[in-house]
Amino acid sequence: MRDSQTLKGSVVIGVDIGGTNIDIGVVDKSFTVHSHTRFKTDKTSPQKMLGDICSSVSRLLKHLDETGVSCEYIGVGSPGRTSDNRTIIRAGNIPYKNTPVAEIIENFTNKEVYLDNDASCALYAEKHAGAGKNVSDMIVMTIGTGIGGGIMINRKSYHGHNNRAGEIGHFIMDKNGPPCPCGLYGCFEKYASVTAFVEAARKEAEARPESLLFELAGGNPENIGGRTPFKAMYAGCEVSKGIIEKYIKNLAGGINSLNKIFQPQIFVLTGGLTNEGEIITSMLKPHLLPEVTAVLSPLGGKAGIVGASLIKKEREE
Amino acid sequence: MRDSQTLKGSVVIGVDIGGTNIDIGVVDKSFTVHSHTRFKTDKTSPQKMLGDICSSVSRLLKHLDETGVSCEYIGVGSPGRTSDNRTIIRAGNIPYKNTPVAEIIENFTNKEVYLDNDASCALYAEKHAGAGKNVSDMIVMTIGTGIGGGIMINRKSYHGHNNRAGEIGHFIMDKNGPPCPCGLYGCFEKYASVTAFVEAARKEAEARPESLLFELAGGNPENIGGRTPFKAMYAGCEVSKGIIEKYIKNLAGGINSLNKIFQPQIFVLTGGLTNEGEIITSMLKPHLLPEVTAVLSPLGGKAGIVGASLIKKEREE
Repeated sequence: MRDSQTLKGSVVIGVDIGGTNIDIGVVDKSFTVHSHTRFKTDKTSPQKMLGDICSSVSRLLKHLDETGVSCEYIGVGSPGRTSDNRTIIRAGNIPYKNTPVAEIIENFTNKEVYLDNDASCALYAEKHAGAGKNVSDMIVMTIGTGIGGGIMINRKSYHGHNNRAGEIGHFIMDKNGPPCPCGLYGCFEKYASVTAFVEAARKEAEARPESLLFELAGGNPENIGGRTPFKAMYAGCEVSKGIIEKYIKNLAGGINSLNKIFQPQIFVLTGGLTNEGEIITSMLKPHLLPEVTAVLSPLGGKAGIVGASLIKKEREE
Repeated sequence: MRDSQTLKGSVVIGVDIGGTNIDIGVVDKSFTVHSHTRFKTDKTSPQKMLGDICSSVSRLLKHLDETGVSCEYIGVGSPGRTSDNRTIIRAGNIPYKNTPVAEIIENFTNKEVYLDNDASCALYAEKHAGAGKNVSDMIVMTIGTGIGGGIMINRKSYHGHNNRAGEIGHFIMDKNGPPCPCGLYGCFEKYASVTAFVEAARKEAEARPESLLFELAGGNPENIGGRTPFKAMYAGCEVSKGIIEKYIKNLAGGINSLNKIFQPQIFVLTGGLTNEGEIITSMLKPHLLPEVTAVLSPLGGKAGIVGASLIKKEREE
């Protein structure tokens, strides 16, 4: 925690709950993250997971206290539908069941806790500290297991009258496509999430055992992850290049569709796919409508922590 | 013009320019339309069309003047992109070319003119006088030659930062579909406009010369219009029923998709398709997500005139 020793004044602790990892850090007034820690998400129960978070946050609080830095409050971003910044009703990845996340952490730490959906937190981070600082209308698209999103209209986060709007991964993009758990079929995320990308790559590798992709997977397509086809493409694999191009075209199609509906000044891409870097935006470019601007999040892996630290600010705006 | 003789106080003249007809009427404070007149749209030039409008509006103004009713201003709804409520930049159906519609009518009539897009006018009409009087979030979907729309968020008409958002007919609904003039491909309106419906019906009739639909078309599928398959279905034609069901499923898919994105409290359907009446909503119902409410516009063919009369009010809100 050495890097927090230079902190002065007051800070906020940001907690970013992911389906795989939990990231926690101290965020200062200029949105710099200090004392970043990461551990695996214990998904056996919300109680176990929240226990891990409380221990980690308590250590951070003790350290801040010792160095004379005051923590204003704790912000928590999590997958799932939240109720009134206090409770997670349910989530796809973590077995919440109306879990009073804010109350549990408050009782343990004696600090005020603000809770919000992770896609919303990603938007807050870009709006105040990232690619959206100087724009009025923006879509932040998180491309990972699924496709989530945050929509900003006139500098305000848009959630609809019932707090359920903005499911940008779920419009029908293939009217002949398979059912989606959301109740529709052939949804955008079925063709443009990392899950979809990996599935397509595994299927193609299976069919092309002579390919470099198949070789890189050690002869077992199940070993293919989100980065494998890119590695293979860089090494000259035409099969992988084809898989990626097909995938990118679908991603661009979804971005273009949302552009017709919202006309944001900028699309900011985050999530697992963007670990691949600028190759994503350069391959997207020729498929995007001329008026569309799509960039990678400049915040990288710390966007979730920064976004969580901004929940209170957003509520007050 | 007999029915305007009962008018008192002040009124607004509403002009609804359509690709086929132009509707003009006098709108009173309770949004009732008087002296409704309709004539064919002369599309040979914007000048000829505007000449017809000016003549008709002048007759109305003269009549109002004679009966001691004052006209506050003239509202004009038109297809196409408008600039600052004064000029139509261009439209698909009418050969506008940066035509200063408001100025031309003002110079002729000596009345203030407010101009807006017809889809926006349809929204204003529903918001103040139709199905949206008591809701905060609504989508008005005009289903005709294409699919247009008006989006209301928190009682405000949504146009995006550049006044070009809300093209709800243009998201990719079939990723393998054909190019659309909008720059995308397989757009929603390619499967759910009246144009798409008629095309599908003609194609199916061609392939099924034994059908009642083919017979109703006098053996020439080109005679099939938007209402023919419905007539045939009511007479027991299974082929027509199949065409309509397939079409309705696509329309429902688009409504459901927009629901995931906007979660409006209500979808209001207008445009040529809705002339068919409640059969549309009753056939849609089983394909809609449980939380979706879709109704037909209660304003019928007068929505355009009423909406045009509300442009000034909307600007002032």
